[in-house]
Amino acid sequence: MQRLAIGIDIGGQSSKCGVVTEDGTILCQSVVTSLIDSFDEYLELLAGTVKDLVRKTADRGVAVGIGIGAPNANRLDGTIRYAPNLRWARGADGKPGIVHLADRLKKATGLHVRITNDANAAARGERTYGVARGINDFIMITLGTGVGSGIISHGRLVYGHDGFAGELGHVCVVPGGGGRQCNCGLRGCLETYASATGVAYSAREILGMDPRDSLLRRLDPLKISSKDVYDAAVKGDVIAKDIFAFTGRILGRALADFVKFSSPQAIVLFGGLTKSREFFHDEMVKAMNDNLMQIWKGQIQILYSSLKESDAAILGASSMVWSPDEV
Amino acid sequence: MQRLAIGIDIGGQSSKCGVVTEDGTILCQSVVTSLIDSFDEYLELLAGTVKDLVRKTADRGVAVGIGIGAPNANRLDGTIRYAPNLRWARGADGKPGIVHLADRLKKATGLHVRITNDANAAARGERTYGVARGINDFIMITLGTGVGSGIISHGRLVYGHDGFAGELGHVCVVPGGGGRQCNCGLRGCLETYASATGVAYSAREILGMDPRDSLLRRLDPLKISSKDVYDAAVKGDVIAKDIFAFTGRILGRALADFVKFSSPQAIVLFGGLTKSREFFHDEMVKAMNDNLMQIWKGQIQILYSSLKESDAAILGASSMVWSPDEV
Repeated sequence: MQRLAIGIDIGGQSSKCGVVTEDGTILCQSVVTSLIDSFDEYLELLAGTVKDLVRKTADRGVAVGIGIGAPNANRLDGTIRYAPNLRWARGADGKPGIVHLADRLKKATGLHVRITNDANAAARGERTYGVARGINDFIMITLGTGVGSGIISHGRLVYGHDGFAGELGHVCVVPGGGGRQCNCGLRGCLETYASATGVAYSAREILGMDPRDSLLRRLDPLKISSKDVYDAAVKGDVIAKDIFAFTGRILGRALADFVKFSSPQAIVLFGGLTKSREFFHDEMVKAMNDNLMQIWKGQIQILYSSLKESDAAILGASSMVWSPDEV
Repeated sequence: MQRLAIGIDIGGQSSKCGVVTEDGTILCQSVVTSLIDSFDEYLELLAGTVKDLVRKTADRGVAVGIGIGAPNANRLDGTIRYAPNLRWARGADGKPGIVHLADRLKKATGLHVRITNDANAAARGERTYGVARGINDFIMITLGTGVGSGIISHGRLVYGHDGFAGELGHVCVVPGGGGRQCNCGLRGCLETYASATGVAYSAREILGMDPRDSLLRRLDPLKISSKDVYDAAVKGDVIAKDIFAFTGRILGRALADFVKFSSPQAIVLFGGLTKSREFFHDEMVKAMNDNLMQIWKGQIQILYSSLKESDAAILGASSMVWSPDEV
């Protein structure tokens, strides 16, 4: 019987579980809600789903472990710490707290559990099954509601002394207090500019300053989403295109500073915002190269994830079961 | 007979060579000038010095290899690339070029040669013999004429895909084009603020804007050095103290962003500017913590090198002979 791994991708809205073979085939999947206030209830739901999946695939192989990618997940101690977007991960005071996800799910299922943050899981997925196969040094940037990152150096994920390395979404891109307020408590974080939320914010800001007409003016400014900006840009709207160009410049400048840290062969971009890449790619690459020293100008590849978004996280999380300590 | 290593620290002004035992004792040292225009002549001088040192210590042990720390040195191919401050490392056009230092010195001495950049060598020195012993995740920042860095992750130096990782002196701290011009061609680099040269620049800038009296006004503004600012601060000069406080704030903010990358247990500071630390330490630590997320506030140690400055680089460079691939 072949060995099978359970990969779980936990997001603020839903948790996706899949049974994966060692060669990266997802045999079956289930989705459960993450919108549950009680950790015990969430755990019961998740453990039940895992057991169902194991039963369903029992004729195909033996499940040997669970790998989880989740926001603020710590590989070293198996906890989720202070995740603002996970309802069930709160302390007694109702504020984001510490939950021992790995231990509890192990008890509930009898399977070994390894967890890592969602961007690290995505980086593992790309390296094991996606565009980063064979690349020993790259930086994964996830551009979704927020901005996450996973850093691969010498073929290994960088975890740092406490398991929390790779919070590049919170690098300051507008210093001096003039930047936007971030959920993390700081100001001027990359995440407040180069995420779906950031694009929506830029739309309101640019529409307020730029007198030109735009399709976006037909919408309630408080409800404009990055999808609206994309749709307008597709129709040729100049302001919408400017919003993405601005986003690209901020992101490209930040990428240049990341290169100075770990000198990656490639930067891999992933997540919902990459669907709009035709409108920010060129400005991003130009800003990155303009802010790099001679040795790196034109040398760093920009790659876009080749995996289906929902699959990448499940595949990456499941790969921890095969090689727990390496990428 | 015990094994001995030759450690060489190459700077723009001089090159220091030492014979080092495996337990980190420097048996003898020589210094030669780096102010030579011809690469062949510089190489002859350096090789001659190495041979002299080997002869002098022949009764104490057998020299088994050479380790070199030098600006812009690339561990992977043994070259020095585009080092603006090394006269002999220029191309036929007189501009900074590529020289094959490791290969040529190996031919001239018959010894194996390994090279790495000077900040990486200092990081190796601290981890092998200094304050970073036993620390698997730290960032070494050298605050000298310029700002260099060496990043240790999972106990290994981060080299990146091309050997040039760790150029944190050129991370942009004043974006948008308003920052100071750096030697690397970019603007707003950390190096233009948090180095000896940066402090001198800040002195001129702050003296020009702040009407208060200062001991520094007795000096020719164009000739003020960071040493002058230090001397004035020691005498209680308020402007001089403000100059260091400003430096500390810029540096601390940058350190916070470095933490978000590799989450080090400690940041180790090294180099001439650390002599003035009593005047910038508190502001630096405050700015770092103010710009860190909750998980890291108050968690990152700031350490100062415990090795004599000239020794650290020689020790770090020599340690490559014992463990070429690891720190």
